[in-house]
Amino acid sequence: MTTMETERHGQRSGPRADVPTVQGVLLGTPEIMTTYIAAFEQMAPHIRLSLPDAITDPESVTFALAWDPGAEDFRPYPHLRLVSSIAAGVNGILQSPSLPSDVPLMRIAGESQAQMMAGFVTWHVLWHHRRFGDYLDHQRQRHWQRLPKRDAADVRVGLLGAGRMGGAVARSLVALDYDVAIHSRSGRNLPAGVEGFSGEAGLERLSARSDILINLLPLTPQTRGILDAALFARMPRGAALIHVGRGEHLIEDDLLAALASGQLAAASLDVFAIEPLPQDHPFWRHERILVTPHDACDSTPPQVAQEVAKALQRLEQGQLPTSVVDREAGY
Amino acid sequence: MTTMETERHGQRSGPRADVPTVQGVLLGTPEIMTTYIAAFEQMAPHIRLSLPDAITDPESVTFALAWDPGAEDFRPYPHLRLVSSIAAGVNGILQSPSLPSDVPLMRIAGESQAQMMAGFVTWHVLWHHRRFGDYLDHQRQRHWQRLPKRDAADVRVGLLGAGRMGGAVARSLVALDYDVAIHSRSGRNLPAGVEGFSGEAGLERLSARSDILINLLPLTPQTRGILDAALFARMPRGAALIHVGRGEHLIEDDLLAALASGQLAAASLDVFAIEPLPQDHPFWRHERILVTPHDACDSTPPQVAQEVAKALQRLEQGQLPTSVVDREAGY
Repeated sequence: MTTMETERHGQRSGPRADVPTVQGVLLGTPEIMTTYIAAFEQMAPHIRLSLPDAITDPESVTFALAWDPGAEDFRPYPHLRLVSSIAAGVNGILQSPSLPSDVPLMRIAGESQAQMMAGFVTWHVLWHHRRFGDYLDHQRQRHWQRLPKRDAADVRVGLLGAGRMGGAVARSLVALDYDVAIHSRSGRNLPAGVEGFSGEAGLERLSARSDILINLLPLTPQTRGILDAALFARMPRGAALIHVGRGEHLIEDDLLAALASGQLAAASLDVFAIEPLPQDHPFWRHERILVTPHDACDSTPPQVAQEVAKALQRLEQGQLPTSVVDREAGY
Repeated sequence: MTTMETERHGQRSGPRADVPTVQGVLLGTPEIMTTYIAAFEQMAPHIRLSLPDAITDPESVTFALAWDPGAEDFRPYPHLRLVSSIAAGVNGILQSPSLPSDVPLMRIAGESQAQMMAGFVTWHVLWHHRRFGDYLDHQRQRHWQRLPKRDAADVRVGLLGAGRMGGAVARSLVALDYDVAIHSRSGRNLPAGVEGFSGEAGLERLSARSDILINLLPLTPQTRGILDAALFARMPRGAALIHVGRGEHLIEDDLLAALASGQLAAASLDVFAIEPLPQDHPFWRHERILVTPHDACDSTPPQVAQEVAKALQRLEQGQLPTSVVDREAGY
């Protein structure tokens, strides 16, 4: 089949008689995972998804959809050709010792998620810049008070992480005239109007120029604990943090200390070391912390089914999935 | 002096010996206006601003800076060459019967204001679309709950008003992937990716497709009371209103009724028929209305001084100010 023909077939909906059936297995928390069975049935009926207990012939399984799998979860399946996360994060999958080293691992990183992240982060940037929390307080007090304003062009926003999500966030903030810089591995290929930094020295310079710092990094051994007292101390006094990476990026006590001293003015946190955030955690009641429930963006089960179907089609054509993980980098 | 020379002179700061001195008068509430005297002294020292009581020779006055002037306020000054508002709105000035009909009237409509408006409105669009009010409530209850999500591309946003501010708002929302349409006089010259509507039939169609409707219109006899029960009834059930035009655009009782019936889900209001909003007004305590104190954007006194200086320079060269008001249109 030529590429043209494959693409035309790809536009069909419904079962495709000419596409080989794939047996997949769901590895991870069953309560989270079972909604994917129905989504795959509808969006990609040639991929049959089953829970491990329902698999009678493990040798027939060529695909695994995983989220926080156990240490031995991959062991029974010797013929895996593809492993996929159900979201952008893959750190939980990479921690499983039974993950085969020679099978492509992909994550879900679509344009829809990137746009959701851009909206979520833009809202928090405006919240801190324009002091919307004060407006809400004033309304409760029936208090009419205009606030002093700064042009967005005078607000320096720093992004840690330059993937598809970082790009979408940066484009949205540039459209609103913010002074945007990004720290990334290469420091290159950045959206128009964005300054690039890389390396340890670049991280120090980016922190020092960030009135608002946004963490969008993937979790890797190199980025674990990156949001710590040393980084907060380099930021301008009274800066704000928007943290939408992974809970393990943040040293929680260092954040509380930076807020107590006034070094940081406020923080928006969407991710936490323990989720759901425990009832007695001090973040819930901190008046300068906004807590959201790891909800900045979502990949819906139908989107996951579509992305996986595309990736399997590429594999059949001898190509890697577009969102394959670089295991050395960890994302 | 050639244009080139004028432009170079324009880049100098401090007094300019070669620029003729202009005597200006401040017409309107003295408490609001007096901060402009210092700003003009610093940014445009060749324009001397005085309150009416301090003017000894009314015939020497060639410029008036006005905000809600009285009916007879313009009468004493027969040689006005320019009248300027201190902001984007000019309806208060147009209401003064003594406003000379043959003098250019300008408003302050800079890029900085447009960007501030874009940020303010974008925050409210995201507030309604992404249900941030629910997140804030949940944090108060220490309640961890993810929310269902809709792609921005599936959220239809309608803008009433297509000036510089409407353009900046539209560009920001397009960058976030919203489905944006604008209603304007001509329905033309719209930002990329935006659908255009015009006329009475266009207003009906725009209302019917607006999950979130944004009012950015100037106040004119044609737009007074435009936000009424008939318009709300045409909007999709459960839509939201963001109102940043003028208080007189809105029939307040119609809004309260639409919220009570569920026809509208929520509203963000920055402008009111009476400002400051009276203490006993029901808007303050309405749980689905966000009240802000006419603070979406600001022109600072230094910005006003710079815009007026540029406009006077254009007049000297025989050109109209760039933001001259079309009195027939009313803005």
